[in-house]
Amino acid sequence: MPRVIKHPDLRRSEILNQALALFLSRGYDNVSLNDIIANAGISKGVFYHYFLSKEALLAALADQFAHQALADLDDVLNDRALNPLQRLNAFLTKGTRIKTELAPGAWAVFGALFRPENLGLYQRVVTASELLFRPILIDIITQGVKERLFDTDDPEGVADLLQQLASNTYSFVTRIIRARTGQERQEALKAFHRRLRLNGMAIDRLLGLSDGSLYVPSLSQVKKLMSRLTA
Amino acid sequence: MPRVIKHPDLRRSEILNQALALFLSRGYDNVSLNDIIANAGISKGVFYHYFLSKEALLAALADQFAHQALADLDDVLNDRALNPLQRLNAFLTKGTRIKTELAPGAWAVFGALFRPENLGLYQRVVTASELLFRPILIDIITQGVKERLFDTDDPEGVADLLQQLASNTYSFVTRIIRARTGQERQEALKAFHRRLRLNGMAIDRLLGLSDGSLYVPSLSQVKKLMSRLTA
Repeated sequence: MPRVIKHPDLRRSEILNQALALFLSRGYDNVSLNDIIANAGISKGVFYHYFLSKEALLAALADQFAHQALADLDDVLNDRALNPLQRLNAFLTKGTRIKTELAPGAWAVFGALFRPENLGLYQRVVTASELLFRPILIDIITQGVKERLFDTDDPEGVADLLQQLASNTYSFVTRIIRARTGQERQEALKAFHRRLRLNGMAIDRLLGLSDGSLYVPSLSQVKKLMSRLTA
Repeated sequence: MPRVIKHPDLRRSEILNQALALFLSRGYDNVSLNDIIANAGISKGVFYHYFLSKEALLAALADQFAHQALADLDDVLNDRALNPLQRLNAFLTKGTRIKTELAPGAWAVFGALFRPENLGLYQRVVTASELLFRPILIDIITQGVKERLFDTDDPEGVADLLQQLASNTYSFVTRIIRARTGQERQEALKAFHRRLRLNGMAIDRLLGLSDGSLYVPSLSQVKKLMSRLTA
């Protein structure tokens, strides 16, 4: 069989997308490295040329998702008809909607990240996504300070705290997933929503806004997101 | 040689303390599992009975440190001559002093936790310590609300955010450690201090306090802590 020569970026992207399709149909845990290479028609050597491990491929997929989300959010992030607070809220609202839409597929692929042994990988994935959105958040907050909508002398710091607080969802998500009764689950969902409100309040107050200025998903939106996640 | 029968807890504690002494004198990375068992006069089987790995032993040492810190902080945490804000600040002040005193030894033992491949272990260690201090912080904040010093309807949430914000030191510490010039290091130290002030402000505002109410170490205290850490 003649060897097909492909551009390395294209080949990498094909391996990623074919693995994604496998994960989506069978779930990450039920797909072996051998399944991935057989499905892609490549050797182990070629696979390892692009990815150090199945976990590294998962991290690359998460990175691809984050870049896609960034592209999807581009319109609201650059909508100059909105003031900085409206842009921040449009970003958060659309971000929640995108997450809810993607949730069922995302869970089949990324649910494995929430296992204790993958905590390090989870952290790396979150950090990569935070670095991607960081300059945009800083830009919006800086613009808001210029327009005297926000009052802070540390836009970078507030942008970081916004992301850091948003990423404290880990323990709540695991608690919801591991709930053994309907009541446990409802309590975990309420606790999650309560924490999201407190996080929003922390950023409101750091920006000199009145409480409730920043978008926080409603309890029913949280329930919808989580039911799609674990369904 | 007759077998010496020891109580399992005592044996475990001995292995921990002997490993600690080795780590303190040579640094965690320069001590192998074989060094640990040879020094303790035990077999690999006995070691694995108590610890899954050298990393698990490190996590157990971190847990021991956290419990010791809790014991050392017991007097200020229970000093009823102090009001809840004063108790919170005494806790934070003494915590910083303890960290500064322990820093040189702690670094020889726990510096390895700040390596990228140990991110998962680092997270587990931090989480264990947070769970230990959580009920105490909740108790102080709840008491402060009762005494109308603090204004929040979510003492648990504020306690969690306080710890979550305090643990965002990771990226700053790694930046300080990896600084290649004196100027990079000074900038990283200033950035760290600036973030600590913002964290303090977030909690001040969530508790309905005026800015600067919560203790935040000064820049020179931060420098002292970090110089002892990496010396």
